[in-house]
Formats: sequence, structure tokens, C-alpha cells
Amino acid sequence: MPEFFKVVRIEEAQALLRSSFPSPRIEEVELGEALGRVLATDVVSRENIPSFPRSTVDGYAVRAQDTFGSSESMPGFLTYKGEILMGAEPDIAVETGECAWIPTGGMLPPGADAAVMVEYTERLGDDTVLINRPVGPGENVVRVGEDVRQGEVVCRGGHWLRPQDLGVLASLGIVRVSVFCREGVGIISSGDEILPIEEVPGPGQVRDVNSYSLKGAVLEAGGRPQLYGIIPDDAGRLREVLGKALHDNRLVLLSGGSSVGYRDLSLEILMSLPGAELLFHGIAARPGKPTMAVRVDDRLVVGLPGHPVACYMMFLLLCRPLLGAPDPVKVRAVMKSAVASQAGRDDYLRVSLRDESEGLVAAPVYGKSGLIKIMARADGYVHIPYEKQGIKAGEPVVVTLF
Amino acid sequence: MPEFFKVVRIEEAQALLRSSFPSPRIEEVELGEALGRVLATDVVSRENIPSFPRSTVDGYAVRAQDTFGSSESMPGFLTYKGEILMGAEPDIAVETGECAWIPTGGMLPPGADAAVMVEYTERLGDDTVLINRPVGPGENVVRVGEDVRQGEVVCRGGHWLRPQDLGVLASLGIVRVSVFCREGVGIISSGDEILPIEEVPGPGQVRDVNSYSLKGAVLEAGGRPQLYGIIPDDAGRLREVLGKALHDNRLVLLSGGSSVGYRDLSLEILMSLPGAELLFHGIAARPGKPTMAVRVDDRLVVGLPGHPVACYMMFLLLCRPLLGAPDPVKVRAVMKSAVASQAGRDDYLRVSLRDESEGLVAAPVYGKSGLIKIMARADGYVHIPYEKQGIKAGEPVVVTLF
Repeated sequence: MPEFFKVVRIEEAQALLRSSFPSPRIEEVELGEALGRVLATDVVSRENIPSFPRSTVDGYAVRAQDTFGSSESMPGFLTYKGEILMGAEPDIAVETGECAWIPTGGMLPPGADAAVMVEYTERLGDDTVLINRPVGPGENVVRVGEDVRQGEVVCRGGHWLRPQDLGVLASLGIVRVSVFCREGVGIISSGDEILPIEEVPGPGQVRDVNSYSLKGAVLEAGGRPQLYGIIPDDAGRLREVLGKALHDNRLVLLSGGSSVGYRDLSLEILMSLPGAELLFHGIAARPGKPTMAVRVDDRLVVGLPGHPVACYMMFLLLCRPLLGAPDPVKVRAVMKSAVASQAGRDDYLRVSLRDESEGLVAAPVYGKSGLIKIMARADGYVHIPYEKQGIKAGEPVVVTLF
Repeated sequence: MPEFFKVVRIEEAQALLRSSFPSPRIEEVELGEALGRVLATDVVSRENIPSFPRSTVDGYAVRAQDTFGSSESMPGFLTYKGEILMGAEPDIAVETGECAWIPTGGMLPPGADAAVMVEYTERLGDDTVLINRPVGPGENVVRVGEDVRQGEVVCRGGHWLRPQDLGVLASLGIVRVSVFCREGVGIISSGDEILPIEEVPGPGQVRDVNSYSLKGAVLEAGGRPQLYGIIPDDAGRLREVLGKALHDNRLVLLSGGSSVGYRDLSLEILMSLPGAELLFHGIAARPGKPTMAVRVDDRLVVGLPGHPVACYMMFLLLCRPLLGAPDPVKVRAVMKSAVASQAGRDDYLRVSLRDESEGLVAAPVYGKSGLIKIMARADGYVHIPYEKQGIKAGEPVVVTLF
């Protein structure tokens, strides 16, 4: 019975894929279209932000030293010089003993070095303002370049752009950004037993789960999924569809039956493609052992297990990082019950999380390989490293959130 | 000087918005297009999954009791009856003393109640299989309905569909799902001092940050952002654009200057719309005090602060939940340094997180109101409740991740 013949550890599989996958292409997009894209280069500010000294309060622009010693019982008296308008350069200067009304965001007039909040002032007729509390120089004011200095790196290349990052880049006048192209990812389901989801499985048949979970996972990782449907265990058809998928995409995911016969067939076909080079055939991991990868010139085919849970886990561990997706969120928790694991294999244990009085508690979501519900119920997974023989109840663990 | 006249606590603001916002509309979409959509109804399985007893291993289908007592030194002998094919109903029955080859995912033949992994067997000629290890009844087999029982609720209404959920629904043959419509959200920036991002701000001017961060935030929350540009402080123009935005969308976000004069203008215009009802005007929160909301018939206008940080925080706290977005992830951490807060106000303190030996440590990201960099540097925020007067260094806190 043929078995896996180039079994690697998960880190090695990840490194092989990374080094075999071509560098991402770069494109420019409008800032407003850049959510969830990955910056290709550092973004450097061409300006000081703010470019003028700005008040952070509604109140009066003053010389700070004119307010020293003022209090409610002994207010300072300043001469009112007029009003600073939003969005306009002040036509007033503030000299010793003077002040000017300034709105939040307004530009500090020449001479002033602080602002007093309106709550701590009182207007006395047309010409006088009472100051009930002192301010220090720079108080309630943002100085030129205090937010961002000219030449400062504001976002690093490789950063996944979040809504607030778009705001940051907008403030710098960055109209277009260089981002990595969304990588096209071909998705093929194969196996005689796989049915389209609208059909009712007969004995021995299952619906095509992986096309749907992989499509979603590719989208979420920032890729462009392209589905090639369900291909039966027919060498000719599979070779043809693989060729087409590899023509259209630099990464192709082939999820298929996990039976030995099937694996042999798909490996044979993959290796018969011109320029094919086997990267690995089997991973010392659970779930996910029957995972393989073949490099075809500058393109990659990853053969994922047919089991939905294993298929999804291996996508997350091996393929998602290739698409530039941000690292998943990890949280610390405590293991609810003991879990055995075999040394010499990386285990990825699906867990559900509960926030209990002593902190987050992770409970294993058990189920026989292939059980769908694990996918719906688990909040994340715990990695049990290669060398480790299990986790004790109450042991602290790191949970990677799905 | 006019001030806020209907100041509410944040919970009250949230409740007022929720009760004023119309129920979401429902539409049906193809499963393959449902990533990130919110289920409108519970999804119930119409079938047992699996619908047939399925092997989870490559090996031999057996009657478990025939394997009892077998070991490497004393293997059991079974008569080989043939091969179960993937995706087909077995044409073999397994009687006492017999076995059949079964691939992973294959249907257990009549008579068999377990499967022995190929690793623990040895083929002896054409007719005999040696069994080196016993299996219990049901071992390496998934029973009918063991994964999902007919009639079981698999996904609840209100659930945000993740990639793995699409897989789960695919397995049940759910071709289309009822989801809430993506809510259209109008976004208006207003203020004389706000410039399009491609322009260079003069004194007292700032670029339009909020259109970009709000567009991204609405997209991320599952809404359909629609931008109405930058409107100067002109009552006629603002009324016209607000009317158009409210015609097109059930939720309109108006972000604008935070000066008293501006706030008065926009409130006056909002209240002059036919059917307008003031929900609140001012929130006892920091940042975000100058936030207001007006209900206009069955639609809502939320007036957000002009400060980018306050604007974004208030969107997250008040508007995001209206769009059906999933609850943000919360993690426990320990506060790095003491932070003062005023009782009688909900504070939302932006923090950066560091994983140190004792666990996650949250450090406040300080900066004067309006500073952009806070948005780029913070990993999340800590809520300091209304009654609380601050956080001590070393105190445990909950951080809501951005």
C-alpha cells in the first residue's frame, strides 16, 4: 500500500511554500478602495500634521503667562481682540493682556501660545474676558508636526489597512496607495463522491463543502477565489482543469478525497504537469496529514485534505499567510480538560472559549475527523507543538481565534 | 453660549438608537455570496449528516466483536469479501468472520459496525486479512446523524457568516440563505475648514479624514457606504444634501466641526427637517461628547464629532451595532500605568497591547484630542465606566480590540 513519501513538519511546509511562491505583484488603488488591502511600501508623511498650531478646545487663545495666578476668586482680565474663524488664517494677533475667541480646530493666532476652555472664562461686555484658571504654554494646543512629523513613516509596508488607517492616510493627503494585488486562487473540488450542494447525497456521497469554506476563507484572506467546480476521479478531466486553473492563478487549491487511491491519482497527475516539482507529500500534523504541495514553474498547487475540518485548518496554516492576510488574533486561556497528543506531530486542537471568573477557559471541541459541527462550534485552535505529548487540565495555552 | 441640552449616558444613547432604527430588511442570497452577511433566521437541518454510516479511516470494515482479543502476536484472521467504492452503495455485506476494504469517507457495508485502520492490518494473499488490534463497536465510524441531526438548529439568526459557516451550510444542502440587507449608510463631512484629501491645507484647514475612516468602518460592519462629499457651513446646501442622503439611506452619518457654532447650525437644520425628533444632544462620554442623533420619520441621522478619533470611537459604539456587525473581540489585560477618569462620564481609553511574560499589558496611547496617530497606534480601547474614577497601575482590564 503506498504511503506518504515526503513527510515534513509544518514549519518546513510553510517555509517551502513561502519560498516557492512568487513575490506579490503591486498595483495602485484609490485610498477609498483600499480597505483590507496590504500596503506594498512604507508610507512616509510629506507634511507636518497639523501644519499650523491648532486649538483642541472652544475658548480663548491667550499668552499663557497672562493667565498665571488667575482663579475663580481672583480672575485675570484680558482684552477681547475678536474671533478666529474656522478654516481661515487669523487676521488678529494676540499681544500681552489680550485674547481672541478660538473654536476647536481653529488656528492659533500669532502671539498666542495656549487656549483657555470657554468653561473657565466669562465674557464681560464687548471688550473684556475673565479668566478663572491658568493654562501652561502649549496647553489645549496641538503644535505643528506634533501629530506626524514630515518624513515620518506612518504605515509600514505589509500592513493590512483598517478603517482607521484609511483615516490616517487621508489626513496626510495620500490619494492613492501601492498595495499588493489580490492574488487569484483557483479552487477545485475533486472526488467521485462529491456532489453539488443542491443535490441530495446518496449512500457514500457527500456535498461539496470545501468549495464554499475555501471560497470564504480566500476572500477573508484578501484573495480572489475562482471556482472550478467538482471534478470526478478522472485523470484526463483533472489534468485539464488543473491546467486551466494554473493558467489563470498562481495558487491552486485542490481539495479531494483522502483515500490512498485518490491521493495517488492526484499526485500522479500533478507530477505529470510540465515543470512540476514535489515540495512535500504528507505533513506530520493533525488534522492535515494528507496534505501535499507541488510547484509547477512559478505556480503552486496545494493538495488539501478532503475532510472539511482538516481542509480548513490546513488552508489557515499554509495558504492564508501567502495571501498577505494579517496574523490572526491570539488570546491566552487555560485548558479545561487534559488532552493527549502524540509527540512527533503538530496537533491543532479546536477549542471553544468561555469567559469564566478565573479568565478565559478553552474546552476542546471533540468530534471524529470530518465532523462539520466542529467548524461551527469552535472559536479557535490550540497548537500542541511537535515535541509535546499533550496538555494538562488547567495548563495555560494560547488560542488562535478563527 | 449655548451648550448641550439633552445629554445622555452612552447606554441610553445606544438604546435610543436601537429602538429608533427600523428593523432590517431581509433578502435571499446564494450561499457562495454570503460571507460576512448576517443570517436573518435560524437555519435548521432538513437531513441527518451523515446520511449513511461513514468510515473515518482507510482500512477494513468489520464486525467489531470479530476483532476482540487480536494483537500483533496473535492476529485475528478475517475473510476478505471485496472493496467498498467511494460514492457508491456497498454491494457487499460483512458477515461474521468477514471484512471489506473501505476508503476514508466510504459507506459502511451492511453487517459491519466498525473500521480497522490499514496500519493495523496485513493482507495475506487474495482472501485473508490479518487484524493486529481490536476495535470497539462504532470505532472509526461516524454514525447516521452523528454530525447533525435532522431538525437541529445549525446556525442562529443574527449570526455573522464566517468561511467555516458557509462550509457547514453547504454540507446541509442550503443553497440560498435569508440574510439582512446591507444597510445603506450616507456619509457627509461638513465644515468650512474641511478640504478634499488631494488638496494642501492652508492655515486653519484640515483634510477630510472622517469620510475615509467612516467608509471603511461601514464596509467592515457590513453596510453599504455612500459618500456625499464635503459640505460647507451653509444651511441651504447642508439641508439639501441631508435630504438627499436621507432619501437614499435609512442611516446618515454627519461628521462635522465640533465648534459650538457649527453644532448649533447642524442641529438647527436637522430639527427643521419634517418629522424630526431629537433623540439626544451630547453624550456623557469621552471622547465623543459632541455627538447627537435625530430621528427623521423612520430614518436616523447621527451627528458625529469632527475629531477623527472621537468620530471613529462613536461610530464603533453607537452605529456599528445597528448594522448587525458581530461583537468585537475582547481580551483581558493588565493596565501598565494609572489613568485618571472623571466619574459621571464613560471614558474610552485607547491602548496598545504588549504580550509580556505576565500576560497582555495595556498601555494608554495618549495624545491630545484629534491626534491622528492615536488611530494608527492603538490596538483597542478600555472602557472606564461612568461610576469609576480611573484605573490603577496593574489593575486587570478588558480591552475591546479595534
